[in-house]
Amino acid sequence: MMQSFQHHAQAFEQFLQEQQLFSREPRNLYEPCSYILSIGGKRIRPSVCLMAAALYKGITPDVYWGAAAIELFHNFTLIHDDIMDNAPLRRGKTTVHELYSTTTAILSGDVMNIMAFQCLERVKPELIPVLLGIFNRTAIEVCEGQQLDMDFEQQDHVTEEAYIHMIAQKTAVLLACSMQIGALIAGATEEDAARLYTFGKNLGIAFQLQDDYLDTFGDGDKVGKQIGGDIQANKKTFLAITAMLQASDTQKTAINILAHGHGTTKVQDTIQLYNTLNVGSICKQAIDAYTQKALQALNEVQVADEKKAPFRELVQFLINRDY
Amino acid sequence: MMQSFQHHAQAFEQFLQEQQLFSREPRNLYEPCSYILSIGGKRIRPSVCLMAAALYKGITPDVYWGAAAIELFHNFTLIHDDIMDNAPLRRGKTTVHELYSTTTAILSGDVMNIMAFQCLERVKPELIPVLLGIFNRTAIEVCEGQQLDMDFEQQDHVTEEAYIHMIAQKTAVLLACSMQIGALIAGATEEDAARLYTFGKNLGIAFQLQDDYLDTFGDGDKVGKQIGGDIQANKKTFLAITAMLQASDTQKTAINILAHGHGTTKVQDTIQLYNTLNVGSICKQAIDAYTQKALQALNEVQVADEKKAPFRELVQFLINRDY
Repeated sequence: MMQSFQHHAQAFEQFLQEQQLFSREPRNLYEPCSYILSIGGKRIRPSVCLMAAALYKGITPDVYWGAAAIELFHNFTLIHDDIMDNAPLRRGKTTVHELYSTTTAILSGDVMNIMAFQCLERVKPELIPVLLGIFNRTAIEVCEGQQLDMDFEQQDHVTEEAYIHMIAQKTAVLLACSMQIGALIAGATEEDAARLYTFGKNLGIAFQLQDDYLDTFGDGDKVGKQIGGDIQANKKTFLAITAMLQASDTQKTAINILAHGHGTTKVQDTIQLYNTLNVGSICKQAIDAYTQKALQALNEVQVADEKKAPFRELVQFLINRDY
Repeated sequence: MMQSFQHHAQAFEQFLQEQQLFSREPRNLYEPCSYILSIGGKRIRPSVCLMAAALYKGITPDVYWGAAAIELFHNFTLIHDDIMDNAPLRRGKTTVHELYSTTTAILSGDVMNIMAFQCLERVKPELIPVLLGIFNRTAIEVCEGQQLDMDFEQQDHVTEEAYIHMIAQKTAVLLACSMQIGALIAGATEEDAARLYTFGKNLGIAFQLQDDYLDTFGDGDKVGKQIGGDIQANKKTFLAITAMLQASDTQKTAINILAHGHGTTKVQDTIQLYNTLNVGSICKQAIDAYTQKALQALNEVQVADEKKAPFRELVQFLINRDY
């Protein structure tokens, strides 16, 4: 299971180690970049970039550089997001701004962002203009998604449509872009690369909805964190938004009272209300709908069906996970 | 005087207005970008980009986009530098992080950085790979310069060489890159573009040294700020570094006592010591040497000599200024 993904993740990891991208001066600038990359992460984006390339002419050094561009950009956003969210921990380790300083985290993040663009230089020149265009558009969407996420925290009412748009920008488009870039570098047609983009975007939305679901309805032991964190923090998740849409006026009042309270039964009372309102199964239906959209786009990709098996495995793995 | 520069600065300003680059959603993300551009700045970098292009095939829309990439990048660094320096004011106006928030300043800066790369997309495709390479290298050097500047604040001893390297990275290379990019887009040979880069880099160093000189030896009324700010703040300027190099052990002790003191005569006592040590004229000599290097590179540029007049005017204007 997931053999293909694991294989690509390891190959990318080795490539990254060999490049020693951040073994340079001044140390105070580059050490935090090495640090954020060293504390793990599943390398999902570069791995799917390699997987997409494997559908076509295969994984040349160019493809690794495209994958590296994505992974560097992603890690830059983690450094800056952690400052903005005031997060002390990332993947169980101290965040960059906590370990060094906010100043360091800003500047090291900035240089990592630019070095992502430098990775694109390593791709064959005739592809650079189109890749730069895709990369720029996606990177801007990621910033917009982060802004919308922060804006929503200040808003009383967020529609389901606006929420899906936000998570698409904030997380799904980068997964989509990874596949599109991998495919293009390996010689895919623009149409096929666009299909893989659609696949990745819908899969990314489904994945994020699954995250929302597990935070409330998951098994705490398996998920590896306290269940109900989103409810405690009054986060505007798909579940919270759906609950407000489904609720009667009386139930809306109850939700708001629960949200603004800090009682010991806040989480379990909210979950009980969610169950009454069928919120869990509505979320499951949405996950299923986006997964189907993703698989449909994958079906339309013009390569032999057996080559797509690793992507189907990936979908099963990401969507059926209970952690 | 400086007619050519003013003309190009105005033309660029009009281009920027017409593009309405930041008239888009979400407003909380893009409004700070409009704001930083609206509070002025002399548009030196885009103007010299246009001036460089005028030496060759002239100023096409491509050239404006190259100039915009540079100006957006520069303004992004201002937003982030102001956070790092804890600066309340920029060009006499409230800084972005003060007016909005640090979080906003980080994210709006990030998107402005990426939009600088997006401007490069608008240049003809066959030039994009080489321009991207120059832009990436320069942008990384600017980050390294900012890091070195911060590192130096923590160090007791900084050499003159290290200081020149720092100001070159932090400010001069972007001026140099502006001219190189403008020239390349307008059809200059790589050799000529490299000569303009050398011109811009040395001019940028001379300009920065002139800034150091004026902060201590300028006429307060003309410079428009209190003289001696660098001395008050114990900044490691070219003057402070030169003083330590020239000083006897006794004088070094005197300098250190002055530096760590806060007496009312701190500035005038330090200036007196600088005068004894000839620091002002050594700085003037360095400014002259870098100006000569710049002019020599300009002489070697393979275009009719009369075309270079605007650049020679620019040098006189920047270096002979007493404000």
